[in-house]
Amino acid sequence: MQYPEPIAKLIDSYMKLPGIGNKTATRLAFYTVDMNEDDVKAFSQALLATKDKLHYCSICGNLTDEDPCEICRDKTRDQTKILVVEQPKDIMVMEKVQEYRGLYHVLHGVLSPIEGKGPEDLNISSLIKRLQKNNDVQEVIVATNATPEGEATAMYLSKLIKPAGIRVTRLAHGLSVGTDIEYADEMTLFKAVQGRTEM
Amino acid sequence: MQYPEPIAKLIDSYMKLPGIGNKTATRLAFYTVDMNEDDVKAFSQALLATKDKLHYCSICGNLTDEDPCEICRDKTRDQTKILVVEQPKDIMVMEKVQEYRGLYHVLHGVLSPIEGKGPEDLNISSLIKRLQKNNDVQEVIVATNATPEGEATAMYLSKLIKPAGIRVTRLAHGLSVGTDIEYADEMTLFKAVQGRTEM
Repeated sequence: MQYPEPIAKLIDSYMKLPGIGNKTATRLAFYTVDMNEDDVKAFSQALLATKDKLHYCSICGNLTDEDPCEICRDKTRDQTKILVVEQPKDIMVMEKVQEYRGLYHVLHGVLSPIEGKGPEDLNISSLIKRLQKNNDVQEVIVATNATPEGEATAMYLSKLIKPAGIRVTRLAHGLSVGTDIEYADEMTLFKAVQGRTEM
Repeated sequence: MQYPEPIAKLIDSYMKLPGIGNKTATRLAFYTVDMNEDDVKAFSQALLATKDKLHYCSICGNLTDEDPCEICRDKTRDQTKILVVEQPKDIMVMEKVQEYRGLYHVLHGVLSPIEGKGPEDLNISSLIKRLQKNNDVQEVIVATNATPEGEATAMYLSKLIKPAGIRVTRLAHGLSVGTDIEYADEMTLFKAVQGRTEM
């Protein structure tokens, strides 16, 4: 016996999500059958809305349902700083910290020769245009991830932007707060020693 | 900064699923943004279809998109046996084993005084009607789960059906295949000794 068609299709759809295999997808599908009808309708509409209503901000590349995005429109933010991230979700993480009140720019990836991703595949040319148009920007903070690709991308941006007389900085690397030195990996310890600060 | 509204709504919907918290829901929502548009549309439609097209079989209570369900319509199946399960998904599990070729009946729950669930809240009266109408049935196999509520429900059904001269059986309890005796719990071992078979 096969699952009834609507269930089989829903299982297929759940399985397309990351980290969800056959068993979990089946469990979720049967759970969906028993869900409140309004919740299922809202879920269905929310899925379509993410595709229909969301797009990338024409200025910074952030995900938004309006253009320009909320951050680019907000003139109370510090217009002298641009923080460069790999993905839109990195912006949300930074915003939760509430330490940074400047602008953002999303690269939508990192340089990766293995995957054949060069500078022209990233949202870099629009960053350069932004810097040329807007003389207010004094600092570009590169917040790509601490991976080899992230580091290479940071280096590339630094070489590209510094000649224009704009300060380029990188987020500090070091021990996570609450970490025992005993459990830190060598590379992190190395960076923590290099970046040590006066007390 | 808040998430754009479509993302926030999708995160809410994902969080309504069992075992999915805020972080996973956020990850799934951002993943959905990058998904193939056709896949998202299919997902959205599959959700609606589970609510619109699926209902319970009027004979056995199984989930189906046609009435009666595939199994109740199949006259090649053994019409002398009815296997009673708690939930529709239990039928799918039994069918995968391919040992059983009879009919099914879904209770949609178990007797549970704590949750205030009595016999009238379960799909029991339709089982009795089925047995009265259909003189072919010679055996009712009770396959409720091996929980206190499942056992109590099995006992209740047995007392109800046996006087009609129909054989009532219960799935065997014992050690799982591949289990070390060392790691089996006491209750399972007790059942395994009780149900020992000749070699």
